[in-house]
Amino acid sequence: MHHVTKTQQFTRSSLDQLFELASKLENKADDSLKGKILASLYYEPSTRTRFSFESAMMRLGGNVLTVENARESSSDVKGETLEDTIRVMNCYADIIILRHPEEGAADRAAKVSKIPVINAGDGTGQHPTQALLDLYTIHRELGRTDGVTIAVVGNLKYYRAARSLAYLLGKYKDIHLTLVSAPALRMRDDIKAYLKRHDVTFDETEDMHAAMKTADVVYQTRMQKEWMSPEEFKTLSGKYIITRKLADSMKKGAIIIHPLPRVGEIMPEVDDSPHAVYFKQVGYGHSVRMALLKTILTAKQK
Amino acid sequence: MHHVTKTQQFTRSSLDQLFELASKLENKADDSLKGKILASLYYEPSTRTRFSFESAMMRLGGNVLTVENARESSSDVKGETLEDTIRVMNCYADIIILRHPEEGAADRAAKVSKIPVINAGDGTGQHPTQALLDLYTIHRELGRTDGVTIAVVGNLKYYRAARSLAYLLGKYKDIHLTLVSAPALRMRDDIKAYLKRHDVTFDETEDMHAAMKTADVVYQTRMQKEWMSPEEFKTLSGKYIITRKLADSMKKGAIIIHPLPRVGEIMPEVDDSPHAVYFKQVGYGHSVRMALLKTILTAKQK
Amino acid sequence: MHHVTKTQQFTRSSLDQLFELASKLENKADDSLKGKILASLYYEPSTRTRFSFESAMMRLGGNVLTVENARESSSDVKGETLEDTIRVMNCYADIIILRHPEEGAADRAAKVSKIPVINAGDGTGQHPTQALLDLYTIHRELGRTDGVTIAVVGNLKYYRAARSLAYLLGKYKDIHLTLVSAPALRMRDDIKAYLKRHDVTFDETEDMHAAMKTADVVYQTRMQKEWMSPEEFKTLSGKYIITRKLADSMKKGAIIIHPLPRVGEIMPEVDDSPHAVYFKQVGYGHSVRMALLKTILTAKQK
Repeated sequence: MHHVTKTQQFTRSSLDQLFELASKLENKADDSLKGKILASLYYEPSTRTRFSFESAMMRLGGNVLTVENARESSSDVKGETLEDTIRVMNCYADIIILRHPEEGAADRAAKVSKIPVINAGDGTGQHPTQALLDLYTIHRELGRTDGVTIAVVGNLKYYRAARSLAYLLGKYKDIHLTLVSAPALRMRDDIKAYLKRHDVTFDETEDMHAAMKTADVVYQTRMQKEWMSPEEFKTLSGKYIITRKLADSMKKGAIIIHPLPRVGEIMPEVDDSPHAVYFKQVGYGHSVRMALLKTILTAKQK
Repeated sequence: MHHVTKTQQFTRSSLDQLFELASKLENKADDSLKGKILASLYYEPSTRTRFSFESAMMRLGGNVLTVENARESSSDVKGETLEDTIRVMNCYADIIILRHPEEGAADRAAKVSKIPVINAGDGTGQHPTQALLDLYTIHRELGRTDGVTIAVVGNLKYYRAARSLAYLLGKYKDIHLTLVSAPALRMRDDIKAYLKRHDVTFDETEDMHAAMKTADVVYQTRMQKEWMSPEEFKTLSGKYIITRKLADSMKKGAIIIHPLPRVGEIMPEVDDSPHAVYFKQVGYGHSVRMALLKTILTAKQK
Repeated sequence: MHHVTKTQQFTRSSLDQLFELASKLENKADDSLKGKILASLYYEPSTRTRFSFESAMMRLGGNVLTVENARESSSDVKGETLEDTIRVMNCYADIIILRHPEEGAADRAAKVSKIPVINAGDGTGQHPTQALLDLYTIHRELGRTDGVTIAVVGNLKYYRAARSLAYLLGKYKDIHLTLVSAPALRMRDDIKAYLKRHDVTFDETEDMHAAMKTADVVYQTRMQKEWMSPEEFKTLSGKYIITRKLADSMKKGAIIIHPLPRVGEIMPEVDDSPHAVYFKQVGYGHSVRMALLKTILTAKQK
């Protein structure tokens, strides 16, 4: 493992190893990345993801260079290509975390970078570590990643992490997806074809109530104003909101996950439900990113 | 001591302990916060206060996550509540420093945060560490905090740190305040009632010249364009400027303090007066913040 | 050496020592600046230069306080003078890196600062560490800094680092400059007078092709939209572009350097030419900044 730009790169065995390490690091951080430098290169501000990686790096003893908004930096304003910026960053850091609004940006960066590049979201492309943390949350909370029924709810068309997750689920056995959305926001055909090829069964429905009763995992997504037309947003948001009553209808041990930030898709009254694990999920994400950084940066030293 | 949101929380004895520790740390920093992470969460940019806390954390061996302008971060743009942001930050850091434009924001944050939250200014609310550093400056420069006459000059209505300080002074004996301001900028009635209840005597005057001659401490405030109407600002700024001649009229050993930045309320010619301690005050603030971080974060470990 | 505001401060012998140390640090960083704090104070965003210094500080074990855009910080918005800001920073850091849009800003800062100030560019003034890294690149790639013919190409009128370099070259023997530019962008008379006084011979030409064939070093500059009128930029950019064919016409061992970012002055096809060292140059810059920080901050301790 060197660059991480898409979830397709991971094998079942590399995921197992990663999750085992993440689990260990939850209890006990170490100093294994002392002297290493992580460069946060954000072409869109994203405090949450940025802090998650930066904190993970610090918990392992490493240092952090950070730019909150690379679009306003002089090099970008002056018209430097992403490739040149990456070549320059290679002289300053040991690993680059890249958030960029254009699909394919992470692959372009990885192509010219000698140091590892981790994709922290490239437009409507992928956001692989979000998918890793979703899966790690399922693994930690359910104690298994095989034989799981997941209701993915809401914004399936635009939500990149749901797509990244679909790729990952192909590695596991007896996964069933219930895709809950308005017809206009259905999962794209390329992902559905991928699921079929990898024996992930799925059905599509508009009935959230029924889906929540049978699911082991309810994956609520965010209505993303930024990718939708105002009309789409107006019509489609507010349709699939999780209330406490709905949460209470879930099976024992079943969980609700959400990539956050939430803006109304889960009512605050759900927060203290035993099914609500979306804030614990943030901690799991932190651990899995620690594991990823440690795996990549200590492998490099060999 | 866990969260620090208002100066009312402090007792005389907790202040004594804090100042004793600050005094020690002035001469000798240590590595007591190694491995700890401070998150700077600024919803208004404030390089000065941010750097003071961050440097204090680093001088004690700790790490820093920082966002210069959280308002532009995607989570805030996407409409996440402050409460959710704080819950997320709990997974990344050991302590949160919060600057927010809305009064009460720090209390809202503290309510949902398991890790300590320090209020670094919440709108027209409080800015408790500013008041702590004002008081610590008096303690260090005068060698006492009882029996002190303080002339607070200028913008008493809008200046939140002067209000926070008033609460602190209630802990001490024989404090007299001379409140120097235009009638339109007088100290608010709730603070005056508080002072009365705590035996802090005060008089109100428009005569800065007389007040400066008798004061042990002249606390010059800043005319804050951001809280005033343009008419107020135009009429009221420029009325209470400290010149060298005025400084020279002060008692031996008396001091001039100012929260900074200054924008004309103290003439540069005053800077090398023996009474001018407003730049030393910045260093005292740094020490008192070190002491606060150390007290809170080492107490937590128990 | 305390403040570094202009290249005129350096002697041949201080440069020799600096380059020797930089060379050592290329292979082996150390922990010599542990516990020290560098404050990055950028009144114009410049991710490249900022990261170079910050990474250099971290590679030596030090800490970093950073403000990406000091213009938006509240103190600057509120009207604080640069001098007051510097006085305040003295309480938080051990060294200040200052980027400011106004010529002379670094000297103003140095005048009131007890801790060292390094000029990282002050408007059309100087950018001394850029000149140091240009010279260090020549030193490392050519194995000598005497007896070198340098073709400086393009934007000689506005490019501050080319001017800073000219001052440095006056320290060396048998340097010849070929100044290649359109008549409108010629090197300014004060620099030419300086070169004459210091026995740096030069000729001025518009013929890039001839200049490149004989040069040991081709120093390509950037057409700086930000300093030029739109008419100047339109007419003058695109005139002196390095193509692969031109690069192939260079002498064996000759090098092409560029301050970066490039925006078309060197075609991407040149990148894998043996003459192209402009990305290696970034690494040399990093090393020379490490050496500078170490020299200044360890000297201070004595």
